[in-house]
Parts: sequence; structure tokens; C-alpha cells
Amino acid sequence: MVGPLDRLGPALGDALVRDPDIAATYAVDCSCAPTAPEHFTVVRARDVQDVVAVLEEAQAHGIPVVPQGARTSLTGASCATEGAIVLNVEDLRDLDIDPVEGHARVDPGLVTAELKSAAHEADLFYPPDPASADTCTIGGNIATNAGGLCCVKYGVTADYVKALEVVLPGGERIRTGKRTAKGVVGYDLTGLFVGSEGTLGVVTAAWVRLVPAPDPALTALATFDSLDDAVRGVLALRADRHRPSLLEFLDRASIAAVQAIGDFGFPSGCEAALLVQSDRPGHAGEDVIRYAATLAEAGAVETVVADNAAEADLLMKGRRMLNHALEAKGGRLAEDACVPIARLAQFVRIGQDISARSGVEITLSGHGGDGNLHPSLFFTRGDPDGLHRAEAALEDLLRAALDLGGTITGEHGIGVQKRRYLSWELGHAELARQRSVKTLFDPRGIMNPGKVY
Amino acid sequence: MVGPLDRLGPALGDALVRDPDIAATYAVDCSCAPTAPEHFTVVRARDVQDVVAVLEEAQAHGIPVVPQGARTSLTGASCATEGAIVLNVEDLRDLDIDPVEGHARVDPGLVTAELKSAAHEADLFYPPDPASADTCTIGGNIATNAGGLCCVKYGVTADYVKALEVVLPGGERIRTGKRTAKGVVGYDLTGLFVGSEGTLGVVTAAWVRLVPAPDPALTALATFDSLDDAVRGVLALRADRHRPSLLEFLDRASIAAVQAIGDFGFPSGCEAALLVQSDRPGHAGEDVIRYAATLAEAGAVETVVADNAAEADLLMKGRRMLNHALEAKGGRLAEDACVPIARLAQFVRIGQDISARSGVEITLSGHGGDGNLHPSLFFTRGDPDGLHRAEAALEDLLRAALDLGGTITGEHGIGVQKRRYLSWELGHAELARQRSVKTLFDPRGIMNPGKVY
Repeated sequence: MVGPLDRLGPALGDALVRDPDIAATYAVDCSCAPTAPEHFTVVRARDVQDVVAVLEEAQAHGIPVVPQGARTSLTGASCATEGAIVLNVEDLRDLDIDPVEGHARVDPGLVTAELKSAAHEADLFYPPDPASADTCTIGGNIATNAGGLCCVKYGVTADYVKALEVVLPGGERIRTGKRTAKGVVGYDLTGLFVGSEGTLGVVTAAWVRLVPAPDPALTALATFDSLDDAVRGVLALRADRHRPSLLEFLDRASIAAVQAIGDFGFPSGCEAALLVQSDRPGHAGEDVIRYAATLAEAGAVETVVADNAAEADLLMKGRRMLNHALEAKGGRLAEDACVPIARLAQFVRIGQDISARSGVEITLSGHGGDGNLHPSLFFTRGDPDGLHRAEAALEDLLRAALDLGGTITGEHGIGVQKRRYLSWELGHAELARQRSVKTLFDPRGIMNPGKVY
Repeated sequence: MVGPLDRLGPALGDALVRDPDIAATYAVDCSCAPTAPEHFTVVRARDVQDVVAVLEEAQAHGIPVVPQGARTSLTGASCATEGAIVLNVEDLRDLDIDPVEGHARVDPGLVTAELKSAAHEADLFYPPDPASADTCTIGGNIATNAGGLCCVKYGVTADYVKALEVVLPGGERIRTGKRTAKGVVGYDLTGLFVGSEGTLGVVTAAWVRLVPAPDPALTALATFDSLDDAVRGVLALRADRHRPSLLEFLDRASIAAVQAIGDFGFPSGCEAALLVQSDRPGHAGEDVIRYAATLAEAGAVETVVADNAAEADLLMKGRRMLNHALEAKGGRLAEDACVPIARLAQFVRIGQDISARSGVEITLSGHGGDGNLHPSLFFTRGDPDGLHRAEAALEDLLRAALDLGGTITGEHGIGVQKRRYLSWELGHAELARQRSVKTLFDPRGIMNPGKVY
């Protein structure tokens, strides 16, 4: 029998990955314990024509398509599914910076750090900086509306995407948004695709806004023996006329985890720590000194200010080691929730209560300045009961985030792992509306089925 | 016969405008020569329930609804249409600023200047500043994705709208976007509604982002005897590490029009002028001096720097008087187009050529730093031939904007007056897709019919 992939074979040539061992490496992403399906096909698109060919054929025959970049998703959004064509766009990596317009045309497979460094060479700045910036791709950043550490000052990926080229199921190439500085012709569909997790089409080019380059960031560290004092510090810094370019929060459990793998200068037994940076041209030094004073006034027991980039880097080391430290603790649900900033202390306290009540160890750290925390819930690997308890604790935590006026995901997205909670936040009427939006672009439901919706 | 409005009467009470003379004042907007339809009904919503009641009834009986704010539209988007309910939301004016989250919850009828001034009192800043800021409403700004003079540094309305509450045809109240700093749960429909010109639903609340307050702006004025030098100056200023907060361009014809009503300090016969501002905290003075030097280097024949706010205001006076000066010249198509910034000189030159060829007087001035100009095309009032020639010249000008990679409207929108050009820019396939998006939210086509689509 001649299947659709046989028909695609000649057109796709060596874009079609024929070696099953190589194909297997495209089956899963960085989410917790994903499993590869039995049957799937991997296409590594060489150009937009390959994307069009796959989406024509997939639409004609109702074959699921899983768009994929560097597979750094933490939610399973880029995992292969049974019978799907995994359409990897990592090889589409063109970049064209236009300093006059102040934007770049970027292919979806370009690694985020490469865009950032090319912008830097042009004295410009592409702010979004997900923790995986060195490996993740712009296409994936757009699919999840990625954030990172800079958002307190600079916002998220959506704030930088001006226009897109997208291939829809069936192979139609469309353009959304505007390449000029302004433009209000018809509906702007750009925002629909940003954060859509591959469920509407495949982004094949993006025009992203670049801003003038800031100074290298300087850093202050403050430690607290009271959670409320630390959050009071966060609120005070948000009221500073010069918004910090980074404002990270670590709770007691996170600090203990980091200190367990090395001494990063956090006093033992402290309740919370804040790391704060300024990158304001010509004023970063005075800003961090003022930030430190603000935090001291809010009740910090100790503040340390780095007055050069090397020292700043040293202070950040504890934060950067946090992920390793948490990984080292064993089985972990690496989570993501966002609450109104004024509710941050309440959310952390609820997390600590859930941990005490359930016996599940929980750390609560992350982008405090945005109210966006990345709780980790730990379990012993290979212990299904422990995993089950961690999942139950997670449900309580996500419910609490919603009750506080927050969201079940600030920047990781829904993927597979949070699908079950989606209706909690959206409600059934909104979910039905969103499904009908999906159907408009993807009438046969071939785009990343089983993800999000 | 009991019509739908009779049925609505008891529910709407005095929201229903029963005096035909008063109702007539809601028939037209600020577009060129609009005419009132014979039959229409005006409802001045007192609260969201009135909006819901109108949209329930309108949907049930297929009655057109024209959402309306302050009627400052230049495109006819808010004009009454035959048989429609004009749903005016000017009385919905609540405002709630949350300085910790850095946003405000705004009702659609609040005047833009009121939001700006309330933000200012809280040491915060709502940047969008359409020329009509003193009279236009936030709802209208959202409907047209309004811009203004600040966009070169701060962007447009869409860049500040985080979340919306919208009432859809049938009366369903939905929420879009996120009230937290981050959030990626499902499709973000916010961007669909921003710039949709009342064709999808009625915005009843918006959460808009506020930023730290800048310093009062200082100003420099530069005049040029060469268009290319002036545009070289624009490009050089866009490359400055500290982006101007305003960068306005006036062509020869605009300068002559302004000087015709008073001496605003422009040398007679100069080819172009640039006004540039900085509002950077603590550095506005040094910035405008540097900007002036940059412009001198680009070939300015004269530069003037205002070193205090009063002088800055004086320099801006010519720009602010421009609209009056152009109004005073007679019949006018007040237009809007945006091109890539590098193409600005080319666009102005094409406009001048079209003027010379057609005999239609055309001025080309506006937000040079964005490539967004507001051409005015003049005709003698009461001369249908003259109007016809102006419209033909406008068509040539809009075609030229598209050929240069630009758009037929940077910030005014499509409304009625540019409907005929919409397919030029979008193409028929995209237009069909956008119509199907509209149908998804507005299946009976009651929302602002005859506008945009």
C-alpha cells in the first residue's frame, strides 16, 4: 500500500528521517517522564517548501502534525504522538537584522541565544531570556510565549513579535501583523499564534522587535528572615521609578537546596532571598545601591551589592545553580504558576502549608517581580504513590493560584501535562470558543492533537 | 406592532435617547462629510447590563449595532447606519489604578487624557497619545489601536492592553488576556479585539499596562533644505541608544501651511523640518542637545534646542497648530499611511510627484520616526470634481505606500472610508479568512455592519 509518506518521500528527500534510531531522538521533550509513541515519522524541514508539502499532505489525509523545535518544552507540547509526522524546523535558521526599522526577521529554528547575540553585535537587544535560551528556538518561544528572567522590566515574547509568516494545515502560507512601525488593517491574528503551542499552524518566520542595548547588569542580593519582608521588598522595588531588569525570589526550601550543593553565600536558615539587577545605561551601579537600601528598609537582614560585572555574575550563581540543585533532589514536577504580585507572600505560604499537610517537599522560587513562581514538587523516582501525592499537591497549588486571581501557567504553557487543568481556568464556554477558533484554522484537527485542547 | 426597541424600553429606561434632536448628535463622527441615516436608535449605556441587554436583543432580531465612544473617528467607523442601534458607552467611565501590578482597569468611555492624568498623579504613565487625546475615549483607542506622537519610543495602544472584558453579540460577557504579569493559558484573543473597529463585540473594560513616569519632555527643532538630509536625520536618531520620545516630520507644504497662519519660527522656503523630544529621566536636556548635533551632522540648516519645558512647548506649537492650519485650507481628506522608515523620503517624493501631476495640493507630515505620515489632500468644498481628483490622488498615494512595503493605515483604521482599499492590502484569501473570524464571534453580522469588511 502506498501511504502518504511514501508519496511525500520524493518531495522531501533527505528531510525525511529514515533511520529509526535517529528518529527516536525526536520523540520526546524535556517534560516529566514522556514516552515515545510506537509509530511516528520525523521530517526535518530544509525550507518552507518542506513545511508546505507536509501540511498539504497531512491535511489531505488527516495525519497529525507535531511542530517541533529544540524540544525544551517542559509540558510535553513537542512530544511525538501516535501516527504523527513530527515536523522539526531546527534547520530553518536564517536571521536578518534591520537596525533602521529596529526589528529582525527570524526563522523559527534559530536558537534564542543566537538571536540575542546577533542583536548585541548590532548594539541592539532582544530581551526575552527563557532559562533554556542557549538551546531553545525562537519558534518554540513563540509557541509558548516564553518569558524568563527579564520580564519584570521587558515583558514576554508576545511583546516583541510584530508579524509572523505561518503555514496553515493544507499548506497555505499566510502573513499576520505588520512589518511597519504601525498598522491597523483588519484583524491582527499575530497574538492568536503566539502561545498557541503548535495547535493552529507552523510559524515559518517572525519579525521581532529589537530595542537599544542596555548596559551589562549589576546585581544586589538581599536575604530575609521573614517572607512578608521579602515580598514587601518586591513591592517596593516595583514602585521604583527605574524598574529592575531582574527580580528573582527564592524561598527557604530553594535556598537550602542550593546551599546543599555548594556555598553560594546565602545565610543558613534564612527565610527568603531576593536577587535584583539593573541594566540602565549609565546608572546600573546607583540603581542597585538604591535597590539594596530599599530592601534593607523593607527588612532585609543582609544586603550585598556587586559593583562590577564579575561580582554581579558571582551573586547570580546561586540562582543559576538552582535548577541543577533541584534536579539533584530526585523525581520532580517542575511547575509554573503566576499570581498577582501583591499575593506573592500568600501564595508561598499556601505552598508551604500544602507541603506540610501532604508531606510533599515543595520549593517555591522564580520570577518574584512578576508574581511568576516555578514551584518544584518532589517525589522518589519509581514510587508511583509518591508521584501521585506530588500530583495531588500540585492540584491544590494550582487551585490556590487561581483562587488568588492568578493563572496555572505563567510561561511554560499547557502542553499535555496541564491539559486536565485548562477548564479550571478558562471555563467550559471559553474552552468551546477556543476550540472553534482552532477549527477555523485547523478544520481537520491535525495540528498537534492531544496538546492543550 | 411591538418592535425590539419597545421591548427594550422598560429595561433601558433613560438610557434610550428619545429626543430625536439629541439622538441626531450621535449620528456622525469626525470623518469627511458623513451623512446621518434616516432611521437609527441611540442607547447611552449606563452600565454593562445595558450593553448586555442591547446585544441580546440585537442578536435575537438581527438588528445592527454601532458601538460608539466620543465619535472622533476620522474614517466613519462610529457613524450610525440605517436601522442600527447606536450603542454609546461614553458614560462608562470607571478607572481603577493598581500601582503594584502596574496596570489600570479602565471603562471604555473614559477620555484618554483622563487616564493619562490619573496615571500621572500616581507617578505612572499611560503612553498612547492620539492627537484627539483630550476628547477621544479608551474604547475608541482600543477599537482603532490608536497611536499618536509617542509611538517612536513607546509603541501603540495594543502594546498596553493586557486584558479585556467584551460583550459579544447575544450578550455573553467574555474575558480575554491576562491580569497577571504573565500567562499562557489557551489562545489570547485580546489582539483580535484591539483594532477590530467594533466589528466583533463591545469592549466594556480594559486592563492597560502603566509604566514609570518619564521626565517632562524637552524639544529640539531642525530645519532642512533637503528632504534626503531630513530623512537621514530620522534614521540617525533611530540609531541613537536613547530613542527620542517624539520625532515628527513636516514637509515643505506643511511648513508653508503652518507659517500661513502665524510665525512659528520655520525659515521660509525650507524643504523639511523635524521636531524631536526626549523625556528620559535626568537626561532629557543632554539628549536633545545630542539629537540636535546629530541632525546638524545630517545636514540641518538650522537647529534650535529648548532647554526648559516652556521653550519646548513653544517649539511644539507649530506642530500642534498644523491641524488647524490644514483645516483652514478648505476641503480636505485627512489621511494616514505608514511605510518602512527607510522609505520615508521616497514616499514623500512620490506624494509630491502625485501632487504635481494631479494638481491636487498635498501636504505630507506626521510621525516621521515611525514612517507614519498623515497626508492631507485638498479640494474646494462643494466642487465634486475636485473631491474626485483628490480621491484619485489618494488612491495613487495608498498604492505607493503598499508598493514601498507599507500599509494604507497606520493608526486611523479602515472604517467606511478605506473599505474599498482593504483588499489591496490583505488580498482576497486573507479577507475571506478575516470574515470567517468575524462570523465566529458575530454569526448574524450585527456588529458595525458596513464598516471595515
